[in-house]
Amino acid sequence: MIGIFDSGYGGLTVLKALASKLPQYKYLYLGDSARAPYGGHDKETILTYSRQAVDFLFGRGVRLIIMACNTVSAVALRQLQEDYLRQPQITDKKILGVIFPLAEKAVKISKNGNFGIVGTRATINSEAYNHELKKLRPGSKIYAQACPLLVPFIEEGWEQKPEAKMILRKYLRPLKSCHIDTLILGCTHYPLMQKQFRQVMNKQVAIPDTGLVVASSLENYLKRHPEIEKILTQNLQGKIHFMTTGDVDKFKNLGSRFFGKPITEVEKVQMG
Amino acid sequence: MIGIFDSGYGGLTVLKALASKLPQYKYLYLGDSARAPYGGHDKETILTYSRQAVDFLFGRGVRLIIMACNTVSAVALRQLQEDYLRQPQITDKKILGVIFPLAEKAVKISKNGNFGIVGTRATINSEAYNHELKKLRPGSKIYAQACPLLVPFIEEGWEQKPEAKMILRKYLRPLKSCHIDTLILGCTHYPLMQKQFRQVMNKQVAIPDTGLVVASSLENYLKRHPEIEKILTQNLQGKIHFMTTGDVDKFKNLGSRFFGKPITEVEKVQMG
Repeated sequence: MIGIFDSGYGGLTVLKALASKLPQYKYLYLGDSARAPYGGHDKETILTYSRQAVDFLFGRGVRLIIMACNTVSAVALRQLQEDYLRQPQITDKKILGVIFPLAEKAVKISKNGNFGIVGTRATINSEAYNHELKKLRPGSKIYAQACPLLVPFIEEGWEQKPEAKMILRKYLRPLKSCHIDTLILGCTHYPLMQKQFRQVMNKQVAIPDTGLVVASSLENYLKRHPEIEKILTQNLQGKIHFMTTGDVDKFKNLGSRFFGKPITEVEKVQMG
Repeated sequence: MIGIFDSGYGGLTVLKALASKLPQYKYLYLGDSARAPYGGHDKETILTYSRQAVDFLFGRGVRLIIMACNTVSAVALRQLQEDYLRQPQITDKKILGVIFPLAEKAVKISKNGNFGIVGTRATINSEAYNHELKKLRPGSKIYAQACPLLVPFIEEGWEQKPEAKMILRKYLRPLKSCHIDTLILGCTHYPLMQKQFRQVMNKQVAIPDTGLVVASSLENYLKRHPEIEKILTQNLQGKIHFMTTGDVDKFKNLGSRFFGKPITEVEKVQMG
């Protein structure tokens, strides 16, 4: 099984693309909605919660975890990979993030090497994207902007309201004068405002589709690692199982907007 | 000592009034910033976190806890009072909230018995204010409005921006046609937008000052309970000690805005 972890709902935009592009696998989605959003939490807290999520998903028989949350990928992924690779009994398990695939894609499509990044404060402060982009393309110029109010707006379902666009304009103003040709949406909530990002940014700026990028990257990863692919296909059920630490009805209602389809069955779980 | 608990920063607006009106006591402020905001969490989660906070504060020698958070007062206070009153060894300790004092004050000043209440979704859904108001004044008409985006705006320091006022107007529109004469700010963040609330609501609507109301209520409570007052004054230091589960620097920066004065020393603590 492939485990998808997110602090709440954003990862459902990634799961949506995975389920559509790679329907042959079974997915277990875990949203820590009871403690979301993570974007304002400090590093230590995010690390503790993410570790609990990894333990939980491995305990449920997951072999491959995708941290479908930029905040977790930015702040905790490297540490988690180090911690779990040290344990010899779980070498057949993997933890992947969303930042490397997005940075790789951005480097592929950018012509001038000027990148814009938007995300939560924790993601932006971590400089995780800067790090990856500069490794992949030395000399990259990176313009980062934290947009902390977008997540609350999107979770309220207010992303179409004029105030949301006014705020987006405020956030993006500094990026518009930087000659960036690629903008990375460094938060899995933001695809719900993809249209507004397009409208506010200059036409020639490319904005990669996070879900598609992560799905393609996973597909390539599994081609390069047939030993993992083999384990995943031993249990071919093509089913998606949703779990939340928070309110089940809220998860169904809010989650369906992110997933793009009704979510009807959700398991309430406890972790930590 | 008097313990003040809040999910994060809002309770500092209450502490500010307490420290000014009742400077003779020692205060211990605990903000669970690592897991804030609580407003979107479900009841069970809020109850678990609040219980941890109560244990923590009692463990630190606190005798009287004020739950200076409407969400906690609305969702968890009654249960906490029941749980802790059952334990005979802690009958010399008390837990108070902010909802009863505010409801009592509102009933005192209202002429027509039509009340407006604004707060987080958890507070509004709990109907805790409705319950208290109807008990204090049967036949009260209550118009409640959840304003979930105000907390993120205030925590961003964006409460003066035009978008904040536009959103506030949207939220208050339904309340403006209800002939309410008293509006309860049922969230300890909202005093930072007291001016904007005044501007948007009709002039004749009274908006009690939460901090002052809670401070007066505590003063009266201690007059009626000299046995508690006596314990508190055994350790007269007139000092305030700040604690957070989250980032200390963030607490200093953000907290100072709520407290109205610079916060220079903060202890990082773990609970739960």
